[in-house]
Amino acid sequence: MDIKTYLKNKKNLVEQALEKNMPAVGGVLAPHVEAMRYSLFAGGKRVRPILCIAAAEALKIEPAPFMPIACAFECIHTYSLIHDDLPAMDNDDLRRGKPTCHKVFGEAEAILAGDGLLTYGFELLSLPCSAELGAEKKLRIINLVARAVGSQGMVGGQALDIASEGKDISFKTLRYLHSCKTGALITAAVQAGAVIGQATEQEFTALTTYGNNIGLAFQIKDDLLNVESTTEELGKAAGSDAEHDKATYPAFFGVEETRKKAADAVEQAIAALENFDNHSDPLRELAQYILYRTK
Amino acid sequence: MDIKTYLKNKKNLVEQALEKNMPAVGGVLAPHVEAMRYSLFAGGKRVRPILCIAAAEALKIEPAPFMPIACAFECIHTYSLIHDDLPAMDNDDLRRGKPTCHKVFGEAEAILAGDGLLTYGFELLSLPCSAELGAEKKLRIINLVARAVGSQGMVGGQALDIASEGKDISFKTLRYLHSCKTGALITAAVQAGAVIGQATEQEFTALTTYGNNIGLAFQIKDDLLNVESTTEELGKAAGSDAEHDKATYPAFFGVEETRKKAADAVEQAIAALENFDNHSDPLRELAQYILYRTK
Repeated sequence: MDIKTYLKNKKNLVEQALEKNMPAVGGVLAPHVEAMRYSLFAGGKRVRPILCIAAAEALKIEPAPFMPIACAFECIHTYSLIHDDLPAMDNDDLRRGKPTCHKVFGEAEAILAGDGLLTYGFELLSLPCSAELGAEKKLRIINLVARAVGSQGMVGGQALDIASEGKDISFKTLRYLHSCKTGALITAAVQAGAVIGQATEQEFTALTTYGNNIGLAFQIKDDLLNVESTTEELGKAAGSDAEHDKATYPAFFGVEETRKKAADAVEQAIAALENFDNHSDPLRELAQYILYRTK
Repeated sequence: MDIKTYLKNKKNLVEQALEKNMPAVGGVLAPHVEAMRYSLFAGGKRVRPILCIAAAEALKIEPAPFMPIACAFECIHTYSLIHDDLPAMDNDDLRRGKPTCHKVFGEAEAILAGDGLLTYGFELLSLPCSAELGAEKKLRIINLVARAVGSQGMVGGQALDIASEGKDISFKTLRYLHSCKTGALITAAVQAGAVIGQATEQEFTALTTYGNNIGLAFQIKDDLLNVESTTEELGKAAGSDAEHDKATYPAFFGVEETRKKAADAVEQAIAALENFDNHSDPLRELAQYILYRTK
Protein backbone atom coordinates (compact mmCIF):
# COMPACT_ATOMS: atom_id res chain seq x y z
CA MET A 1 0.00 0.00 0.00
CA ASP A 2 1.02 3.61 -0.61
CA ILE A 3 0.61 5.54 2.64
CA LYS A 4 0.75 8.93 0.91
CA THR A 5 -2.21 8.09 -1.31
CA TYR A 6 -4.03 6.56 1.66
CA LEU A 7 -3.48 9.69 3.76
CA LYS A 8 -4.54 11.97 0.93
CA ASN A 9 -7.76 10.02 0.30
CA LYS A 10 -8.68 9.83 3.97
CA LYS A 11 -7.85 13.50 4.51
CA ASN A 12 -10.28 14.35 1.71
CA LEU A 13 -12.95 12.16 3.27
CA VAL A 14 -12.45 13.80 6.67
CA GLU A 15 -12.58 17.29 5.21
CA GLN A 16 -15.75 16.55 3.26
CA ALA A 17 -17.32 15.21 6.45
CA LEU A 18 -16.16 18.23 8.47
CA GLU A 19 -17.60 20.55 5.83
CA LYS A 20 -20.88 18.65 5.90
CA ASN A 21 -21.11 18.54 9.69
CA MET A 22 -19.87 21.98 10.75
CA PRO A 23 -22.36 24.84 11.14
CA ALA A 24 -22.16 27.26 8.19
CA VAL A 25 -21.19 30.89 8.66
CA GLY A 26 -24.26 33.09 8.56
CA GLY A 27 -26.90 34.70 10.72
CA VAL A 28 -26.46 36.59 13.93
CA LEU A 29 -24.09 34.05 15.51
CA ALA A 30 -21.59 34.34 12.65
CA PRO A 31 -18.29 35.74 14.00
CA HIS A 32 -17.22 32.92 16.29
CA VAL A 33 -18.40 30.25 13.83
CA GLU A 34 -16.09 31.92 11.32
CA ALA A 35 -13.28 31.67 13.89
CA MET A 36 -14.09 27.98 14.49
CA ARG A 37 -14.00 27.27 10.77
CA TYR A 38 -10.84 29.33 10.23
CA SER A 39 -8.85 27.11 12.58
CA LEU A 40 -10.57 23.88 11.63
CA PHE A 41 -9.89 24.37 7.93
CA ALA A 42 -6.38 25.81 8.30
CA GLY A 43 -4.78 22.74 6.73
CA GLY A 44 -4.32 20.18 9.48
CA LYS A 45 -2.99 16.72 8.68
CA ARG A 46 -6.15 15.12 10.16
CA VAL A 47 -4.02 12.49 11.89
CA ARG A 48 -6.50 11.77 14.69
CA PRO A 49 -9.61 11.17 12.56
CA ILE A 50 -7.50 9.08 10.17
CA LEU A 51 -6.23 6.98 13.09
CA CYS A 52 -9.83 6.43 14.19
CA ILE A 53 -10.80 5.35 10.67
CA ALA A 54 -7.72 3.14 10.23
CA ALA A 55 -8.36 1.37 13.54
CA ALA A 56 -11.93 0.55 12.48
CA GLU A 57 -10.64 -0.65 9.10
CA ALA A 58 -8.06 -2.85 10.85
CA LEU A 59 -11.09 -4.68 12.29
CA LYS A 60 -12.71 -4.89 8.83
CA ILE A 61 -15.37 -2.26 9.45
CA GLU A 62 -16.21 0.22 6.70
CA PRO A 63 -15.85 3.63 8.40
CA ALA A 64 -18.23 5.72 6.24
CA PRO A 65 -21.20 5.74 8.70
CA PHE A 66 -18.91 6.80 11.53
CA MET A 67 -17.32 9.90 10.04
CA PRO A 68 -18.95 12.26 12.59
CA ILE A 69 -17.12 10.34 15.34
CA ALA A 70 -13.81 10.61 13.47
CA CYS A 71 -14.43 14.34 12.87
CA ALA A 72 -15.05 14.91 16.59
CA PHE A 73 -11.35 14.21 17.20
CA GLU A 74 -10.32 16.96 14.78
CA CYS A 75 -12.72 19.45 16.43
CA ILE A 76 -11.33 18.63 19.88
CA HIS A 77 -7.73 18.70 18.65
CA THR A 78 -8.29 22.09 16.99
CA TYR A 79 -9.89 23.49 20.18
CA SER A 80 -6.76 22.47 22.10
CA LEU A 81 -4.51 24.23 19.57
CA ILE A 82 -6.56 27.45 19.69
CA HIS A 83 -6.49 27.60 23.50
CA ASP A 84 -2.82 26.54 23.74
CA ASP A 85 -1.84 29.36 21.36
CA LEU A 86 -3.58 32.09 23.43
CA PRO A 87 -1.44 34.92 24.85
CA ALA A 88 -2.08 33.70 28.41
CA MET A 89 -0.82 30.23 27.41
CA ASP A 90 1.97 29.65 24.85
CA ASN A 91 1.39 33.00 23.12
CA ASP A 92 2.01 31.69 19.59
CA ASP A 93 1.39 33.84 16.51
CA LEU A 94 1.65 31.14 13.88
CA ARG A 95 -0.10 27.79 13.46
CA ARG A 96 -0.22 25.60 10.36
CA GLY A 97 1.52 28.42 8.48
CA LYS A 98 -1.21 30.95 9.25
CA PRO A 99 -1.78 33.57 11.95
CA THR A 100 -3.27 31.93 15.05
CA CYS A 101 -6.99 32.26 15.76
CA HIS A 102 -6.64 35.04 18.35
CA LYS A 103 -4.36 37.01 16.00
CA VAL A 104 -7.14 37.11 13.41
CA PHE A 105 -10.30 37.22 15.53
CA GLY A 106 -9.11 38.54 18.90
CA GLU A 107 -8.78 36.73 22.22
CA ALA A 108 -12.46 36.64 23.18
CA GLU A 109 -13.52 35.07 19.88
CA ALA A 110 -10.61 32.61 20.05
CA ILE A 111 -11.56 31.45 23.55
CA LEU A 112 -15.18 31.04 22.40
CA ALA A 113 -14.16 29.33 19.15
CA GLY A 114 -12.21 26.79 21.23
CA ASP A 115 -15.14 26.33 23.62
CA GLY A 116 -17.44 25.89 20.62
CA LEU A 117 -15.20 23.29 18.96
CA LEU A 118 -14.78 21.26 22.16
CA THR A 119 -18.54 21.24 22.65
CA TYR A 120 -19.11 20.46 18.98
CA GLY A 121 -16.86 17.44 19.35
CA PHE A 122 -19.23 16.05 21.97
CA GLU A 123 -22.22 16.96 19.82
CA LEU A 124 -20.77 14.94 16.93
CA LEU A 125 -20.03 12.00 19.23
CA SER A 126 -23.65 11.99 20.43
CA LEU A 127 -25.30 12.34 17.02
CA PRO A 128 -27.86 9.63 16.25
CA CYS A 129 -26.05 8.99 12.94
CA SER A 130 -24.77 5.44 13.17
CA ALA A 131 -27.41 2.98 14.27
CA GLU A 132 -24.97 0.13 13.54
CA LEU A 133 -22.95 1.11 16.58
CA GLY A 134 -25.57 1.11 19.32
CA ALA A 135 -26.01 3.58 22.14
CA GLU A 136 -23.94 1.62 24.69
CA LYS A 137 -20.85 1.74 22.48
CA LYS A 138 -21.36 5.41 21.67
CA LEU A 139 -21.59 6.23 25.37
CA ARG A 140 -18.38 4.27 25.93
CA ILE A 141 -16.64 6.39 23.26
CA ILE A 142 -17.94 9.64 24.79
CA ASN A 143 -16.73 8.58 28.22
CA LEU A 144 -13.27 7.58 27.03
CA VAL A 145 -12.91 10.82 25.06
CA ALA A 146 -14.06 12.94 28.02
CA ARG A 147 -11.54 11.25 30.29
CA ALA A 148 -8.77 11.57 27.69
CA VAL A 149 -9.22 15.30 27.16
CA GLY A 150 -10.24 16.41 30.67
CA SER A 151 -8.43 17.61 33.75
CA GLN A 152 -6.65 14.28 34.19
CA GLY A 153 -5.81 14.09 30.46
CA MET A 154 -5.14 16.71 27.79
CA VAL A 155 -6.17 19.73 29.90
CA GLY A 156 -4.03 18.41 32.75
CA GLY A 157 -1.07 17.96 30.40
CA GLN A 158 -1.31 21.54 29.16
CA ALA A 159 -1.60 22.83 32.74
CA LEU A 160 1.46 20.82 33.72
CA ASP A 161 3.32 22.06 30.62
CA ILE A 162 2.68 25.69 31.55
CA ALA A 163 3.50 25.10 35.22
CA SER A 164 6.79 23.43 34.17
CA GLU A 165 8.14 26.26 32.01
CA GLY A 166 11.55 27.34 33.18
CA LYS A 167 11.60 24.70 35.92
CA ASP A 168 13.72 21.60 36.23
CA ILE A 169 11.35 18.68 35.86
CA SER A 170 12.20 15.00 36.02
CA PHE A 171 12.07 12.79 32.94
CA LYS A 172 9.20 10.94 34.63
CA THR A 173 7.21 14.18 34.79
CA LEU A 174 8.01 14.99 31.15
CA ARG A 175 6.87 11.51 30.12
CA TYR A 176 3.63 11.97 32.06
CA LEU A 177 3.12 15.45 30.63
CA HIS A 178 3.49 14.10 27.07
CA SER A 179 1.15 11.20 27.68
CA CYS A 180 -1.54 13.60 28.94
CA LYS A 181 -1.04 16.48 26.55
CA THR A 182 -0.56 14.61 23.28
CA GLY A 183 -0.86 10.90 23.90
CA ALA A 184 -4.30 10.78 25.50
CA LEU A 185 -6.28 12.15 22.53
CA ILE A 186 -4.31 10.09 19.98
CA THR A 187 -4.91 6.93 22.01
CA ALA A 188 -8.60 7.84 22.39
CA ALA A 189 -8.93 8.23 18.60
CA VAL A 190 -7.50 4.73 18.08
CA GLN A 191 -9.69 3.35 20.89
CA ALA A 192 -12.80 4.92 19.36
CA GLY A 193 -11.92 3.17 16.08
CA ALA A 194 -11.55 -0.05 18.06
CA VAL A 195 -15.01 0.37 19.61
CA ILE A 196 -16.47 1.18 16.17
CA GLY A 197 -14.74 -1.96 14.87
CA GLN A 198 -16.43 -4.09 17.57
CA ALA A 199 -13.00 -5.00 18.99
CA THR A 200 -12.66 -7.91 21.39
CA GLU A 201 -11.09 -7.09 24.73
CA GLN A 202 -7.71 -8.36 23.49
CA GLU A 203 -7.94 -6.33 20.29
CA PHE A 204 -8.89 -3.24 22.30
CA THR A 205 -5.86 -3.71 24.55
CA ALA A 206 -3.53 -4.23 21.58
CA LEU A 207 -4.86 -1.11 19.84
CA THR A 208 -4.49 0.86 23.08
CA THR A 209 -0.83 -0.17 23.26
CA TYR A 210 -0.45 0.86 19.63
CA GLY A 211 -2.08 4.22 20.41
CA ASN A 212 0.05 4.87 23.49
CA ASN A 213 3.23 4.21 21.53
CA ILE A 214 2.41 6.30 18.48
CA GLY A 215 1.27 9.07 20.83
CA LEU A 216 4.69 8.96 22.42
CA ALA A 217 6.45 8.80 19.05
CA PHE A 218 4.37 11.74 17.85
CA GLN A 219 5.39 13.93 20.76
CA ILE A 220 9.08 12.93 20.59
CA LYS A 221 9.03 13.74 16.87
CA ASP A 222 7.39 17.12 17.64
CA ASP A 223 10.25 17.85 20.04
CA LEU A 224 12.77 16.88 17.32
CA LEU A 225 11.08 18.99 14.67
CA ASN A 226 11.05 21.98 17.01
CA VAL A 227 14.85 21.66 17.25
CA GLU A 228 15.68 20.63 13.68
CA SER A 229 13.25 22.48 11.41
CA THR A 230 12.65 26.05 10.38
CA THR A 231 9.48 27.99 11.16
CA GLU A 232 8.71 28.00 7.44
CA GLU A 233 8.91 24.21 7.21
CA LEU A 234 6.85 23.68 10.38
CA GLY A 235 4.16 26.30 9.84
CA LYS A 236 4.55 27.17 13.51
CA ALA A 237 7.34 28.69 15.58
CA ALA A 238 10.47 26.52 15.42
CA GLY A 239 12.90 26.69 18.33
CA SER A 240 10.12 27.83 20.65
CA ASP A 241 10.75 25.01 23.15
CA ALA A 242 14.30 26.18 23.84
CA GLU A 243 13.10 29.79 23.90
CA HIS A 244 10.46 28.96 26.54
CA ASP A 245 13.02 26.79 28.36
CA LYS A 246 10.74 23.78 28.02
CA ALA A 247 11.76 20.28 29.02
CA THR A 248 11.96 18.12 25.89
CA TYR A 249 13.37 14.75 24.85
CA PRO A 250 16.34 16.36 23.02
CA ALA A 251 17.07 18.45 26.12
CA PHE A 252 17.22 15.27 28.20
CA PHE A 253 18.91 12.88 25.79
CA GLY A 254 20.40 14.82 22.88
CA VAL A 255 19.17 14.51 19.30
CA GLU A 256 20.65 11.10 18.41
CA GLU A 257 19.34 9.24 21.44
CA THR A 258 15.96 10.98 21.01
CA ARG A 259 15.72 9.72 17.42
CA LYS A 260 16.36 6.22 18.68
CA LYS A 261 13.63 6.54 21.32
CA ALA A 262 11.13 7.66 18.69
CA ALA A 263 12.05 4.69 16.50
CA ASP A 264 11.68 2.35 19.50
CA ALA A 265 8.20 3.65 20.22
CA VAL A 266 7.16 3.13 16.59
CA GLU A 267 8.59 -0.39 16.69
CA GLN A 268 6.58 -1.18 19.81
CA ALA A 269 3.43 0.29 18.22
CA ILE A 270 3.85 -2.02 15.23
CA ALA A 271 4.67 -5.01 17.47
CA ALA A 272 1.33 -4.48 19.26
CA LEU A 273 -0.42 -5.30 15.97
CA GLU A 274 1.19 -8.73 15.56
CA ASN A 275 -2.13 -10.60 15.72
CA PHE A 276 -3.81 -8.32 13.16
CA ASP A 277 -3.90 -9.17 9.43
CA ASN A 278 -3.10 -6.91 6.50
CA HIS A 279 -6.20 -4.78 7.11
CA SER A 280 -4.07 -3.09 9.75
CA ASP A 281 -1.32 -2.17 7.28
CA PRO A 282 -2.46 1.48 7.25
CA LEU A 283 -1.94 1.60 11.03
CA ARG A 284 1.57 0.18 10.57
CA GLU A 285 2.36 2.66 7.81
CA LEU A 286 0.90 5.52 9.85
CA ALA A 287 3.28 4.68 12.69
CA GLN A 288 6.22 4.93 10.29
CA TYR A 289 4.82 8.13 8.80
CA ILE A 290 4.75 9.76 12.23
CA LEU A 291 8.47 9.12 12.48
CA TYR A 292 9.39 10.45 9.04
CA ARG A 293 7.03 13.42 8.75
CA THR A 294 8.67 16.80 8.27
CA LYS A 295 5.94 18.93 9.91
CA MET B 1 -44.26 23.08 50.71
CA ASP B 2 -41.50 25.41 51.91
CA ILE B 3 -39.30 26.30 48.95
CA LYS B 4 -36.46 27.59 51.13
CA THR B 5 -36.16 24.26 52.94
CA TYR B 6 -36.49 22.42 49.62
CA LEU B 7 -33.71 24.50 48.04
CA LYS B 8 -31.45 24.08 51.06
CA ASN B 9 -31.90 20.30 51.11
CA LYS B 10 -31.33 19.91 47.38
CA LYS B 11 -28.34 22.24 47.45
CA ASN B 12 -26.79 20.02 50.11
CA LEU B 13 -27.49 16.93 48.01
CA VAL B 14 -25.91 18.54 44.94
CA GLU B 15 -22.85 19.66 46.86
CA GLN B 16 -22.34 16.23 48.38
CA ALA B 17 -22.59 14.71 44.91
CA LEU B 18 -20.18 17.29 43.44
CA GLU B 19 -17.73 16.58 46.25
CA LYS B 20 -18.01 12.86 45.63
CA ASN B 21 -17.66 13.15 41.86
CA MET B 22 -15.00 15.83 41.40
CA PRO B 23 -11.34 14.83 41.24
CA ALA B 24 -9.52 15.61 44.49
CA VAL B 25 -6.63 18.06 44.64
CA GLY B 26 -3.34 16.23 44.77
CA GLY B 27 -0.54 14.83 42.66
CA VAL B 28 1.23 16.45 39.76
CA LEU B 29 -1.94 17.74 38.08
CA ALA B 30 -3.01 19.71 41.16
CA PRO B 31 -3.05 23.45 40.30
CA HIS B 32 -5.83 23.55 37.72
CA VAL B 33 -7.93 21.03 39.67
CA GLU B 34 -7.65 23.45 42.58
CA ALA B 35 -8.85 26.22 40.25
CA MET B 36 -11.76 24.06 39.07
CA ARG B 37 -12.78 23.31 42.66
CA TYR B 38 -12.32 26.93 43.76
CA SER B 39 -14.97 28.14 41.30
CA LEU B 40 -17.22 25.11 41.64
CA PHE B 41 -17.39 25.41 45.42
CA ALA B 42 -17.58 29.21 45.57
CA GLY B 43 -21.16 29.17 46.83
CA GLY B 44 -23.41 28.91 43.78
CA LYS B 45 -27.17 28.55 44.20
CA ARG B 46 -27.11 25.23 42.23
CA VAL B 47 -30.25 26.32 40.37
CA ARG B 48 -29.56 24.19 37.27
CA PRO B 49 -28.97 20.83 39.02
CA ILE B 50 -31.96 21.53 41.28
CA LEU B 51 -34.15 22.22 38.21
CA CYS B 52 -33.00 18.91 36.72
CA ILE B 53 -33.87 17.09 39.95
CA ALA B 54 -37.21 18.88 40.35
CA ALA B 55 -38.24 18.05 36.77
CA ALA B 56 -37.54 14.35 37.39
CA GLU B 57 -39.47 14.53 40.66
CA ALA B 58 -42.40 16.18 38.86
CA LEU B 59 -42.61 12.92 36.91
CA LYS B 60 -42.43 10.88 40.14
CA ILE B 61 -38.87 9.66 39.66
CA GLU B 62 -36.54 9.54 42.66
CA PRO B 63 -33.46 11.51 41.48
CA ALA B 64 -30.76 9.93 43.70
CA PRO B 65 -29.26 7.62 41.01
CA PHE B 66 -29.01 10.52 38.57
CA MET B 67 -27.04 13.03 40.62
CA PRO B 68 -23.99 12.90 38.29
CA ILE B 69 -26.25 14.14 35.47
CA ALA B 70 -27.59 16.96 37.66
CA CYS B 71 -24.04 17.86 38.72
CA ALA B 72 -22.92 18.07 35.08
CA PHE B 73 -25.07 21.19 34.71
CA GLU B 74 -23.27 22.92 37.58
CA CYS B 75 -19.85 22.02 36.07
CA ILE B 76 -20.88 23.41 32.69
CA HIS B 77 -22.46 26.51 34.23
CA THR B 78 -19.32 27.18 36.30
CA TYR B 79 -17.09 26.77 33.21
CA SER B 80 -19.17 29.43 31.45
CA LEU B 81 -18.79 31.83 34.39
CA ILE B 82 -14.99 31.34 34.55
CA HIS B 83 -14.56 32.01 30.82
CA ASP B 84 -17.06 34.90 30.76
CA ASP B 85 -15.16 36.60 33.60
CA LEU B 86 -11.78 36.47 31.78
CA PRO B 87 -10.03 39.76 30.98
CA ALA B 88 -10.54 39.18 27.24
CA MET B 89 -14.27 38.74 27.85
CA ASP B 90 -16.22 40.63 30.55
CA ASN B 91 -13.12 41.26 32.69
CA ASP B 92 -14.85 40.78 36.03
CA ASP B 93 -12.94 40.69 39.32
CA LEU B 94 -15.72 39.44 41.55
CA ARG B 95 -18.03 36.42 41.34
CA ARG B 96 -20.21 34.96 44.08
CA GLY B 97 -18.58 37.44 46.47
CA LYS B 98 -15.07 36.13 45.83
CA PRO B 99 -12.23 37.08 43.48
CA THR B 100 -12.80 35.50 40.05
CA CYS B 101 -10.84 32.39 39.07
CA HIS B 102 -8.26 34.23 36.93
CA LYS B 103 -7.68 36.75 39.73
CA VAL B 104 -6.63 33.94 42.05
CA PHE B 105 -4.98 31.44 39.69
CA GLY B 106 -3.99 33.51 36.65
CA GLU B 107 -5.47 33.53 33.17
CA ALA B 108 -3.89 30.33 31.88
CA GLU B 109 -5.15 28.26 34.81
CA ALA B 110 -8.59 29.88 34.56
CA ILE B 111 -8.91 29.03 30.86
CA LEU B 112 -7.84 25.46 31.62
CA ALA B 113 -10.11 25.21 34.67
CA GLY B 114 -13.03 26.19 32.42
CA ASP B 115 -11.98 23.71 29.75
CA GLY B 116 -11.66 21.04 32.43
CA LEU B 117 -15.10 21.73 33.90
CA LEU B 118 -16.81 21.73 30.50
CA THR B 119 -15.19 18.41 29.68
CA TYR B 120 -15.97 17.05 33.12
CA GLY B 121 -19.61 17.87 32.54
CA PHE B 122 -19.63 15.53 29.56
CA GLU B 123 -17.71 12.91 31.53
CA LEU B 124 -20.41 12.99 34.23
CA LEU B 125 -23.16 12.76 31.61
CA SER B 126 -21.51 9.68 30.10
CA LEU B 127 -20.81 7.84 33.36
CA PRO B 128 -22.23 4.33 33.50
CA CYS B 129 -23.87 5.23 36.84
CA SER B 130 -27.58 4.94 36.26
CA ALA B 131 -28.58 1.68 34.61
CA GLU B 132 -32.26 2.58 35.09
CA LEU B 133 -31.96 5.25 32.43
CA GLY B 134 -30.58 3.28 29.48
CA ALA B 135 -27.91 4.31 27.01
CA GLU B 136 -30.33 5.73 24.41
CA LYS B 137 -31.76 8.23 26.88
CA LYS B 138 -28.31 9.18 28.15
CA LEU B 139 -27.15 9.84 24.60
CA ARG B 140 -30.21 12.01 24.07
CA ILE B 141 -29.30 14.05 27.16
CA ILE B 142 -25.69 14.45 25.99
CA ASN B 143 -26.85 15.57 22.56
CA LEU B 144 -29.34 18.11 23.90
CA VAL B 145 -26.76 19.50 26.34
CA ALA B 146 -24.08 19.76 23.61
CA ARG B 147 -26.48 21.64 21.36
CA ALA B 148 -27.62 23.90 24.22
CA VAL B 149 -24.12 24.97 25.22
CA GLY B 150 -22.36 24.99 21.83
CA SER B 151 -21.79 27.58 19.13
CA GLN B 152 -25.52 27.85 18.40
CA GLY B 153 -26.36 27.99 22.11
CA MET B 154 -24.54 29.30 25.17
CA VAL B 155 -21.20 29.92 23.43
CA GLY B 156 -23.05 31.71 20.63
CA GLY B 157 -24.93 33.84 23.15
CA GLN B 158 -21.72 34.94 24.87
CA ALA B 159 -20.11 35.73 21.48
CA LEU B 160 -23.15 37.79 20.51
CA ASP B 161 -23.11 39.53 23.91
CA ILE B 162 -19.48 40.58 23.45
CA ALA B 163 -20.04 41.60 19.83
CA SER B 164 -23.04 43.71 20.92
CA GLU B 165 -21.29 45.79 23.60
CA GLY B 166 -21.67 49.49 22.90
CA LYS B 167 -23.81 48.79 19.83
CA ASP B 168 -27.49 49.46 19.29
CA ILE B 169 -29.11 46.08 19.01
CA SER B 170 -32.78 45.35 18.43
CA PHE B 171 -34.98 43.88 21.13
CA LYS B 172 -35.27 40.78 18.94
CA THR B 173 -31.49 40.35 19.06
CA LEU B 174 -31.43 40.89 22.83
CA ARG B 175 -34.17 38.29 23.25
CA TYR B 176 -32.19 35.83 21.11
CA LEU B 177 -28.97 36.61 22.98
CA HIS B 178 -30.65 35.89 26.31
CA SER B 179 -32.20 32.66 25.10
CA CYS B 180 -28.78 31.40 23.94
CA LYS B 181 -26.60 32.72 26.75
CA THR B 182 -28.80 31.92 29.76
CA GLY B 183 -31.93 30.19 28.59
CA ALA B 184 -30.44 27.27 26.69
CA LEU B 185 -28.63 25.64 29.63
CA ILE B 186 -31.54 26.21 32.03
CA THR B 187 -33.94 24.65 29.53
CA ALA B 188 -31.53 21.76 28.95
CA ALA B 189 -31.37 21.09 32.71
CA VAL B 190 -35.17 20.86 32.86
CA GLN B 191 -35.23 18.72 29.69
CA ALA B 192 -32.62 16.35 31.14
CA GLY B 193 -34.85 15.95 34.20
CA ALA B 194 -37.74 15.23 31.83
CA VAL B 195 -35.74 12.50 30.06
CA ILE B 196 -34.69 11.04 33.43
CA GLY B 197 -38.37 11.11 34.42
CA GLN B 198 -39.34 9.09 31.30
CA ALA B 199 -41.49 12.01 30.09
CA THR B 200 -44.03 11.46 27.35
CA GLU B 201 -43.68 13.69 24.31
CA GLN B 202 -46.37 16.03 25.66
CA GLU B 203 -44.73 16.20 29.08
CA PHE B 204 -41.37 16.91 27.45
CA THR B 205 -42.89 19.76 25.43
CA ALA B 206 -44.61 21.22 28.51
CA LEU B 207 -41.40 21.07 30.55
CA THR B 208 -39.48 22.67 27.66
CA THR B 209 -41.98 25.56 27.67
CA TYR B 210 -41.54 25.81 31.44
CA GLY B 211 -37.73 25.85 30.98
CA ASN B 212 -37.80 28.47 28.24
CA ASN B 213 -39.93 30.78 30.36
CA ILE B 214 -37.98 30.47 33.59
CA GLY B 215 -34.76 30.92 31.56
CA LEU B 216 -36.19 34.18 30.28
CA ALA B 217 -37.41 35.22 33.76
CA PHE B 218 -33.98 34.39 35.17
CA GLN B 219 -32.18 36.62 32.68
CA ILE B 220 -34.67 39.50 33.06
CA LYS B 221 -34.26 39.26 36.84
CA ASP B 222 -30.46 39.29 36.41
CA ASP B 223 -30.81 42.51 34.41
CA LEU B 224 -33.00 43.98 37.16
CA LEU B 225 -30.61 42.96 39.95
CA ASN B 226 -27.72 44.51 38.04
CA VAL B 227 -29.61 47.83 38.11
CA GLU B 228 -31.21 47.65 41.56
CA SER B 229 -28.69 45.91 43.83
CA THR B 230 -25.33 46.72 45.31
CA THR B 231 -22.15 44.77 44.52
CA GLU B 232 -22.15 43.56 48.12
CA GLU B 233 -25.66 42.14 47.84
CA LEU B 234 -24.98 40.50 44.46
CA GLY B 235 -21.51 39.12 45.11
CA LYS B 236 -20.57 40.34 41.64
CA ALA B 237 -20.21 43.76 40.06
CA ALA B 238 -23.51 45.65 40.19
CA GLY B 239 -24.15 48.32 37.59
CA SER B 240 -21.73 46.61 35.19
CA ASP B 241 -24.30 46.36 32.39
CA ALA B 242 -24.70 50.15 32.22
CA GLU B 243 -20.94 50.55 32.55
CA HIS B 244 -20.35 48.22 29.57
CA ASP B 245 -23.22 49.89 27.71
CA LYS B 246 -24.99 46.54 27.42
CA ALA B 247 -28.47 46.16 26.03
CA THR B 248 -30.79 44.98 28.83
CA TYR B 249 -34.50 44.72 29.52
CA PRO B 250 -34.48 47.79 31.81
CA ALA B 251 -32.65 49.76 29.11
CA PHE B 252 -35.38 48.86 26.62
CA PHE B 253 -38.46 49.05 28.82
CA GLY B 254 -37.61 50.79 32.11
CA VAL B 255 -37.68 49.04 35.49
CA GLU B 256 -41.46 48.84 36.02
CA GLU B 257 -42.32 47.32 32.64
CA THR B 258 -39.35 44.94 32.98
CA ARG B 259 -40.68 43.69 36.34
CA LYS B 260 -44.00 43.00 34.67
CA LYS B 261 -42.32 41.06 31.87
CA ALA B 262 -40.46 38.90 34.37
CA ALA B 263 -43.70 38.18 36.20
CA ASP B 264 -45.41 37.32 32.89
CA ALA B 265 -42.67 34.82 32.03
CA VAL B 266 -43.02 33.16 35.44
CA GLU B 267 -46.79 33.00 34.98
CA GLN B 268 -46.35 31.30 31.59
CA ALA B 269 -43.85 28.88 33.09
CA ILE B 270 -46.35 27.85 35.75
CA ALA B 271 -49.19 27.67 33.21
CA ALA B 272 -47.14 25.15 31.20
CA LEU B 273 -47.42 22.77 34.16
CA GLU B 274 -51.22 22.75 34.24
CA ASN B 275 -51.46 19.03 33.52
CA PHE B 276 -48.92 18.09 36.22
CA ASP B 277 -49.99 17.11 39.76
CA ASN B 278 -48.57 18.36 43.05
CA HIS B 279 -45.27 16.52 42.46
CA SER B 280 -44.42 19.52 40.28
CA ASP B 281 -44.99 22.03 43.09
CA PRO B 282 -41.22 22.51 43.55
CA LEU B 283 -41.01 23.56 39.89
CA ARG B 284 -43.83 26.07 40.46
CA GLU B 285 -42.17 27.41 43.60
CA LEU B 286 -38.80 27.56 41.86
CA ALA B 287 -40.33 29.76 39.16
CA GLN B 288 -41.56 32.17 41.84
CA TYR B 289 -38.22 32.02 43.62
CA ILE B 290 -36.43 33.13 40.46
CA LEU B 291 -38.55 36.24 40.47
CA TYR B 292 -38.07 37.14 44.14
CA ARG B 293 -34.43 36.18 44.63
CA THR B 294 -32.12 38.98 45.73
CA LYS B 295 -28.90 37.66 44.19
